[in-house]
Amino acid sequence: MPRFVDHDARRRDVTEIARQLVVARGRAALTVRNVAAAAGCSSTIVSHYFGDMDELFHATYAAAARRSSQRIRAVEQRDPLDMRGLVEAVLPLDAERTDDWRVWFAFWSEALTSSAWAAEQRERALGTLRRFERCLRGLNDEGRLRPDVDVRDAAGRLAALVPGLAAEAIFDPDRWTPARQRRVLRSELTLIGLT
Amino acid sequence: MPRFVDHDARRRDVTEIARQLVVARGRAALTVRNVAAAAGCSSTIVSHYFGDMDELFHATYAAAARRSSQRIRAVEQRDPLDMRGLVEAVLPLDAERTDDWRVWFAFWSEALTSSAWAAEQRERALGTLRRFERCLRGLNDEGRLRPDVDVRDAAGRLAALVPGLAAEAIFDPDRWTPARQRRVLRSELTLIGLT
Repeated sequence: MPRFVDHDARRRDVTEIARQLVVARGRAALTVRNVAAAAGCSSTIVSHYFGDMDELFHATYAAAARRSSQRIRAVEQRDPLDMRGLVEAVLPLDAERTDDWRVWFAFWSEALTSSAWAAEQRERALGTLRRFERCLRGLNDEGRLRPDVDVRDAAGRLAALVPGLAAEAIFDPDRWTPARQRRVLRSELTLIGLT
Repeated sequence: MPRFVDHDARRRDVTEIARQLVVARGRAALTVRNVAAAAGCSSTIVSHYFGDMDELFHATYAAAARRSSQRIRAVEQRDPLDMRGLVEAVLPLDAERTDDWRVWFAFWSEALTSSAWAAEQRERALGTLRRFERCLRGLNDEGRLRPDVDVRDAAGRLAALVPGLAAEAIFDPDRWTPARQRRVLRSELTLIGLT
């Protein structure tokens, strides 16, 4: 009997090891040698699955983005008009979401000089903005927002608040605790009539 | 007569060339060879002024931070209670401020794995937060804010709005024009009673 290798599973394993490396030691630590050492496999295997370290770095970004999408979907399935839940799904309120932001901030730096990656960042940010707009419009239709709220402006403020709070919390976690992040978010939601 | 070299001026020149390199091509482009080529001087001169490229990269960050401080001081000297002006001084509303944000996002990525640089980022962000709080408290003392405004929460929202809007504008300048950035900022200021 030949031994079958589950290539997708192997790719996922290498990606997960790479993600942990990026979170702990940054994009610069992502070398074939480091990944192979962390995975306990040969460099040849790493190179077999990923053409170069940019491709592997992108896979770690995509993995973080997928986790984030799953959290968002879970909120939307529970209650599509849960504005606070939609924001909290992408705030660094626990280890998983904090790790994701470390990957995203590393990705931003690379995206500054890659038009393809900048386009991805743009799409993701636009997706967030549209998701927030959709939710606010739904709330507005039910008369749950203050009557003078401009939905588009409010979505813009919330969409900007997310990376802003994330930057504060990543670099100053003692000051920007989950409780403080939630407090600032709640204050913004209160202004538009949500509590 | 011996020829005197103005070492400070030379250091500034090399820093400015490095800053342009980082803005255009990212942190990875900052090599002794690239800087020397752009400066039209020998690698020895670059190495004479900067021990390594991390030191030079930090100098480009410090230069961007200095420009930003000058813009802020200009606003404060004109009117220390100009909340909108204080925020706009650090939004990517023109080429200079956009360039600064490119340097800062590149710096963030490096700061993820450098405790010294993370501490600098933390201090700068805290400085922004305190500056906003001070301004809002002054406005509040003059009765110019809505009476129910919590100054600390409002400062937190504005401090988070800045990097959030910057991230949108850096990666999606067509959508996040200066007019749109100002519109979202104005909507936030209107909510607390400022116009």
